[in-house]
Amino acid sequence: MLEGKHIVIIGGDARQLEIIRKLSRLQAKLSLVGFQQLDDGFIGASKEGIDDINWSNVDAVILPVSGTDAHGSVETVFSNEKVILNRKHLQQSPKHCVIYSGISNEYLTDITKKANRKLVKLMDRDDIAIYNSIPTAEGALMIAIQHTDITLHNADIIVLGLGRTGMTIARTFSAIGAKVKVAVREADLLARATEMGLKAIPISDLEQHSEACDLFINTIPALVLTEKVLAKIPTHSLIIDLASKPGGTDFDYAEKRGIRAQLVPGLPGIVAPKTAGIILANVLTELILEQ
Amino acid sequence: MLEGKHIVIIGGDARQLEIIRKLSRLQAKLSLVGFQQLDDGFIGASKEGIDDINWSNVDAVILPVSGTDAHGSVETVFSNEKVILNRKHLQQSPKHCVIYSGISNEYLTDITKKANRKLVKLMDRDDIAIYNSIPTAEGALMIAIQHTDITLHNADIIVLGLGRTGMTIARTFSAIGAKVKVAVREADLLARATEMGLKAIPISDLEQHSEACDLFINTIPALVLTEKVLAKIPTHSLIIDLASKPGGTDFDYAEKRGIRAQLVPGLPGIVAPKTAGIILANVLTELILEQ
Repeated sequence: MLEGKHIVIIGGDARQLEIIRKLSRLQAKLSLVGFQQLDDGFIGASKEGIDDINWSNVDAVILPVSGTDAHGSVETVFSNEKVILNRKHLQQSPKHCVIYSGISNEYLTDITKKANRKLVKLMDRDDIAIYNSIPTAEGALMIAIQHTDITLHNADIIVLGLGRTGMTIARTFSAIGAKVKVAVREADLLARATEMGLKAIPISDLEQHSEACDLFINTIPALVLTEKVLAKIPTHSLIIDLASKPGGTDFDYAEKRGIRAQLVPGLPGIVAPKTAGIILANVLTELILEQ
Repeated sequence: MLEGKHIVIIGGDARQLEIIRKLSRLQAKLSLVGFQQLDDGFIGASKEGIDDINWSNVDAVILPVSGTDAHGSVETVFSNEKVILNRKHLQQSPKHCVIYSGISNEYLTDITKKANRKLVKLMDRDDIAIYNSIPTAEGALMIAIQHTDITLHNADIIVLGLGRTGMTIARTFSAIGAKVKVAVREADLLARATEMGLKAIPISDLEQHSEACDLFINTIPALVLTEKVLAKIPTHSLIIDLASKPGGTDFDYAEKRGIRAQLVPGLPGIVAPKTAGIILANVLTELILEQ
């Protein structure tokens, strides 16, 4: 139970509703900033302006996955008000107050540091990344089915990377009958791909495996689908790039060759906002209980 | 090789192109009716009007999956001309000439019978139905991912029927981590579902299993999702009905209760026209070679 805890939830999209729902059920006192258009009443929750909050008893601040922009502005899907979080807000909070955000930037890192408050970046956590890889893989499935004229069953697919997301992608596509090759650099990942019953390719050999491939799914945040590799890819093939911006594909060259390539970060919030919200709510609850 | 065989291909969509491609490669002589806007040149193929064909040496006629309408008109995606197949065309063909269609209707059955020619309904064949169940399952995956706000992984799914399509659906959704229950009537199918590691439900018990279900996928061509069952279904759940028209759902009652229910026949041609065409082309080639 979170009775007696005061938590400020600032902005965000449908995922935040699952967080509010769970924290409300655990009897936390919630101040909701940027939720004016939200109709649902949650027990123990009140809509407040960011400057009206009694910061002196705030135990935790929850920002959306995107955090703030470079000027401190927070995305608010459920409100038209402009919400800006600044250092003064945080300085008024007690020393033990923790700031939770999906990702951070220079602004957010700077104000939490100067206010001497702890900042937790949820998207850096392995557990969140692994749970999120499930809706990400389903989003990739959806895109691949939509944008090809063949079945994924029996299709030739190369998955680049076998990390937290790559492993889920490789397993999911293989499970529905695709012929999955996994391109990785490290010897242990080559071994793991082989153990999974998949064809392991040293990434240095990618070029020679690219000629007969229908679909590439990249999870490596570095330029791996280079001009040299793309020159070998059949023009009917599709590239789904899941790596964080700017992705791992030479998109300009892909366009020149007429190869369809999509950078699609943030799939969990798009294809399964409820599940993505529950993932965040579960981990956040654990973290606040441990505080 | 189909050298010396004269085959008339009448109308259809992108799937027909795979059939033309394969038969052309096997050196058949092809008369294409209803393909005026088709740019690709295929060796041994010529575009002709249905009345200009020398029917006296035609070995096979290939109609699209939909066959003809009630007046003999054939769908032509690649042409604006109106193409009507009648009994006189068939009567001019040699006795061994076989008519291949996806499905039939009273008109088509009648003219082939009166002309005393053999009619093969491809969609009645088990092999075609099983091959087609693969793109059907991928289409169902796509719709389910698009139209729910949760992941299919860990979702509660009931598949109705374990026939040619139901088995593929059950296996596919189970493979990506859904909790799949299979509702069937026959004792052997209850045994098969259990062998597959799935939860088998006698269809008479469907009602009591419906309360905690996120997604229903029906493959049974009879009214199984009745008012009585639908009354128990949570309103957030989605029904994908893959049975041939009119499906197995009481759609009027579903709408009254605000339950989303979609009848989606013909997924292979929509989500994977190339694969669906190759499936038809492979089976057709075998059948014509055996003629």
